[in-house]
Amino acid sequence: MRKFVIKGNICYSKSINELCITQDGYVVCEDGICTGVYKKLPEHYEILPFYDYTDKIIIPGFTDLHIHAPQYPFRGFGMDLELIGWLNAHTFPEEAKYSDIEYAQNAYSIFTTDLLNSATTRACVFGTIHIPATILLMEKLDNAGIKAYVGKVNMDRNSPEYLCEKNAEQAFKDTEQWIKDSARFENVKPILTPRFIPACSDSLMEKLSVLQKKYQLPVQSHLSENTEEIQWVKELCPGTAFYGEAYNKYGLFGNGFPAIMAHCIHSNEDEINLIKEQNVFVAHCPESNTNLSSGIAPIRAYLNLGINTGLGTDIAAGSSLSVFKAMAMAIQCSKLRWRLQDQSLAPLGIKEVFYMATKGGGKFFGKTGSFEKGYEFDAVIIDDSTIKHPYKLNTMERLERLVYLAEDKNIVAKFVNGKKLFERTVSN
Amino acid sequence: MRKFVIKGNICYSKSINELCITQDGYVVCEDGICTGVYKKLPEHYEILPFYDYTDKIIIPGFTDLHIHAPQYPFRGFGMDLELIGWLNAHTFPEEAKYSDIEYAQNAYSIFTTDLLNSATTRACVFGTIHIPATILLMEKLDNAGIKAYVGKVNMDRNSPEYLCEKNAEQAFKDTEQWIKDSARFENVKPILTPRFIPACSDSLMEKLSVLQKKYQLPVQSHLSENTEEIQWVKELCPGTAFYGEAYNKYGLFGNGFPAIMAHCIHSNEDEINLIKEQNVFVAHCPESNTNLSSGIAPIRAYLNLGINTGLGTDIAAGSSLSVFKAMAMAIQCSKLRWRLQDQSLAPLGIKEVFYMATKGGGKFFGKTGSFEKGYEFDAVIIDDSTIKHPYKLNTMERLERLVYLAEDKNIVAKFVNGKKLFERTVSN
Repeated sequence: MRKFVIKGNICYSKSINELCITQDGYVVCEDGICTGVYKKLPEHYEILPFYDYTDKIIIPGFTDLHIHAPQYPFRGFGMDLELIGWLNAHTFPEEAKYSDIEYAQNAYSIFTTDLLNSATTRACVFGTIHIPATILLMEKLDNAGIKAYVGKVNMDRNSPEYLCEKNAEQAFKDTEQWIKDSARFENVKPILTPRFIPACSDSLMEKLSVLQKKYQLPVQSHLSENTEEIQWVKELCPGTAFYGEAYNKYGLFGNGFPAIMAHCIHSNEDEINLIKEQNVFVAHCPESNTNLSSGIAPIRAYLNLGINTGLGTDIAAGSSLSVFKAMAMAIQCSKLRWRLQDQSLAPLGIKEVFYMATKGGGKFFGKTGSFEKGYEFDAVIIDDSTIKHPYKLNTMERLERLVYLAEDKNIVAKFVNGKKLFERTVSN
Repeated sequence: MRKFVIKGNICYSKSINELCITQDGYVVCEDGICTGVYKKLPEHYEILPFYDYTDKIIIPGFTDLHIHAPQYPFRGFGMDLELIGWLNAHTFPEEAKYSDIEYAQNAYSIFTTDLLNSATTRACVFGTIHIPATILLMEKLDNAGIKAYVGKVNMDRNSPEYLCEKNAEQAFKDTEQWIKDSARFENVKPILTPRFIPACSDSLMEKLSVLQKKYQLPVQSHLSENTEEIQWVKELCPGTAFYGEAYNKYGLFGNGFPAIMAHCIHSNEDEINLIKEQNVFVAHCPESNTNLSSGIAPIRAYLNLGINTGLGTDIAAGSSLSVFKAMAMAIQCSKLRWRLQDQSLAPLGIKEVFYMATKGGGKFFGKTGSFEKGYEFDAVIIDDSTIKHPYKLNTMERLERLVYLAEDKNIVAKFVNGKKLFERTVSN
């Protein structure tokens, strides 16, 4: 079990600038771990079970570094507002529904099925403030075999009464209970999830810091997404020089614990330095940042600085949970940023976005997102035969084309940590 | 024949600001013409054949105002260049292949099938310089029942030897022959298609002007797409104050004939005034303009001025022939333009892009793109049941969601001028 060989056109990143392609190659999985990619299969592997995906494209699974599961129902509509207005008009009313476990059951089933059918193998997921619904979400993802960090959201101020924790003390108790309840999952782990500074009181942040140390938990939140939001944080936290400090003063900005900050569009130099210094992951969410008119993050600069950077779909400010789409939009937004804002940062290309979608974001889960030796064996098999073509393309052309044109139906098999989650055929 | 009633959730634009929705409504077709939308079907129509699309979304078909059929094979790859480099590296070598009629047969079959399966009912299409391949393309579109203007491309300078007309005299003869040959089609009509000013000599433009008057033909071309291109036109046409004048001085910029100019990103005030004055149609191609790092056209300004504006997918600088995707990107690009470039122009919303995709671009074909009385009956039936949802959405929410999430499989029937092109079911 979990020892096998697969054959096909294998694509993976070694680094930001190194996209490796082995046409008609072999990749070997032993006990859920990748032992290497071979142009010719070493003889001692010939006895292993063999999956023949000849002519298909094989990539490591994608990591979605930032996605709000409860917002999935309203993806694609209500797109006429900026962040704060959008939260109040669409997000908070929808998230409130998850106090109803039956609603959550239905909605999270749809979300989990669609995520399973996508090319995503790992995800960092926001839930809501509700414990039962969040545990349910974790259970569904766990059963589906998707590796995920899932967060019960914390928010105790500047939030509508119907979606607000009573006070920091209660939030602390509830969150600790939820952490304990979520210990039973195999694939899914808890992650501390203060919504964002405007919605989290100082005492709440202090308490989350206690929980972080006690349970050794990673953290995820939002940072410098919208200019109005940044201004608000400045007013709420007069003692901080920039937004990131409002997390950092409670140790919730790296400080030895893994941390993801979504967006980082308008981060100033000091904030960027702190992100780098604290090994914080930047979750770049280009479609969300476009749909909410937030702006375009300087991702090329982050990559140049060696900052950990991955992609997020940010459902439902992003409309699609396809990381392929996030890759395409990361390239597209970087081009518009170059044209309209700053010609010192060259646009991103396929190599950079493929790296971010796989090894870059995957790093948050350890050694994942590559077929290099020692990496967890996550693989997505893509049959692109539905995208008709008058002549034979090379693998690189096919891979680039998939970034723009892949649909979920093209995903014909998915493995996570050596376990096959599904296999199917594409109908032409 | 061509007399029937369809029932469903009917959506159409009356104007840029007026998107009409009739839930569980009826739309009646008589002899290919729409006679109106009804909440309750008038009694005298009850005898007509009836298509029951209850719960489905019914929209007028989309007009794609700018698409290059021969570029369809390389959609989605080679996306790392700007206009001129991209033309030389990818476009010209691909277009040269259409001198081979067998290649054209294969490639144009794929293109036509995919266009048929999309929500597009009408299109303004570039071919190549080759007459047999262009006639073949017209034949395929005609047989498919898609209404189209198709242009044999003219280019006689600054083009690679393998893709260049011998001289203006030969181009004139060939083009006239092609115009005569294409008279036999029912759904497809010829349109004069000088590639763009850099590729067309003064004498070629003069001759096209003669053909335009002789055969009363519309014209399509490119305008002010890329700053480098604009500079080049300035050098090539020292007597013109702006790019558009280089068409206008030969009468190929409206002047009583329908004209489409794709892009118009960097048009100055004089050029915009001339576009308006000459009733030139602007084909806004947001994905193309993004992929080639060209910039973002000020579409809100064009709409405010009453300029005829529609959408183009601009395959293959655009990766997808889905006009839904063009609509989404038109909204998205307008938001980034607002954020990064000019806060005096509010972002576009669903109403504006739906108008452009239907009635706005459809106007190039006469009274098409709406279900108002007297409009040609083009309709696309959409089954969005594959996009699962935990509660019932209203039609407006479903329509907006489709802009971001529709796939071709959701298009379950298509009518053009009252003729049904196909009907199928969506598999969930």
